[in-house]
Amino acid sequence: MDFKTLLINRRAIRDFQNKEVPLSVIKEIIQDTCLAPTASNRQPCKFIIIRNRDDIKKLSDESKKNLLSDLERNPGSPLKQYEPRLRDEQFNVFYNAPCLVYVIGPKEVQSLDVDCGLTVAYFMFSAASKGLGTCWIGLGAHIRDRKTLDKMGVPVDCQIVAPVLIGYPTSIPPASERHAPEIVKII
Amino acid sequence: MDFKTLLINRRAIRDFQNKEVPLSVIKEIIQDTCLAPTASNRQPCKFIIIRNRDDIKKLSDESKKNLLSDLERNPGSPLKQYEPRLRDEQFNVFYNAPCLVYVIGPKEVQSLDVDCGLTVAYFMFSAASKGLGTCWIGLGAHIRDRKTLDKMGVPVDCQIVAPVLIGYPTSIPPASERHAPEIVKII
Repeated sequence: MDFKTLLINRRAIRDFQNKEVPLSVIKEIIQDTCLAPTASNRQPCKFIIIRNRDDIKKLSDESKKNLLSDLERNPGSPLKQYEPRLRDEQFNVFYNAPCLVYVIGPKEVQSLDVDCGLTVAYFMFSAASKGLGTCWIGLGAHIRDRKTLDKMGVPVDCQIVAPVLIGYPTSIPPASERHAPEIVKII
Repeated sequence: MDFKTLLINRRAIRDFQNKEVPLSVIKEIIQDTCLAPTASNRQPCKFIIIRNRDDIKKLSDESKKNLLSDLERNPGSPLKQYEPRLRDEQFNVFYNAPCLVYVIGPKEVQSLDVDCGLTVAYFMFSAASKGLGTCWIGLGAHIRDRKTLDKMGVPVDCQIVAPVLIGYPTSIPPASERHAPEIVKII
């Protein structure tokens, strides 16, 4: 798959075939992410693979509960736009994905967010090159209950950066609208 | 160029041919980055293209000066490892790159770091697909003098996230050593 085709195929996918992703394939994709650049080549990202749909649903419920509690404390938050969906008990923030991968890393790493951003882009391109679809679900990152974090395997010195869905897409939708790039100056 | 070839060709490049990168090519690469996913599809990244080598050198000097001042205030900082190079007047943090692209964005965007991480990965892959080399230079991000920022076109409400070199590589080095991915749990 050449780069232009990869660009077209790397879409945010929220609708998946009812088909499991082999663990070996997920591991191959995670192996590819090791080639992502990270600050001082530190590779701070760690991975949690969740394929049990009941567990995925529980994590959705926990994240929704925490987001609604944040919204109650700060009603002017940009979260407001998501309130109807967060209050809908049927709404699973992880949609019908057969697999969810959490990308986490040590809280002490100052560059963790950019390192994870680069690493997740590698994850998404590698997945797209194998015919898989992904989506970063910001609404699914808010897991705070220590027992749940322990069950997931999140060490106390680590934080969740990116929950990423992965599965076989039912279709590849066109890109959502983008604005032209803003080049503020050429020197 | 297929994905596996792209993975091999996307290396951190610090040694460039003495050959300018056409502005049209840099704009094509920046256009490709618009397809990167960003939180709520906000596309917060903005770009500054610097092709004047004197200006690139001045930005290196300004960033080095600020890093040395940080190090004086905090001698235990991880910056310590870079001190000899930062004190070397001949050392240009941007090496001999013919072009430097700053990726900046609004300070108020909470997801700015991850959005820029994803966007820069697109920039790097697009560049690699065109035979160009890139490198994110963390040491070059520390521009604080307001007059310099004004000259670069950095708005007061924006911050620098990523200075990225771009040019034609003299060679494609092998990947620096990586450790195996850390999969902390499979559920």
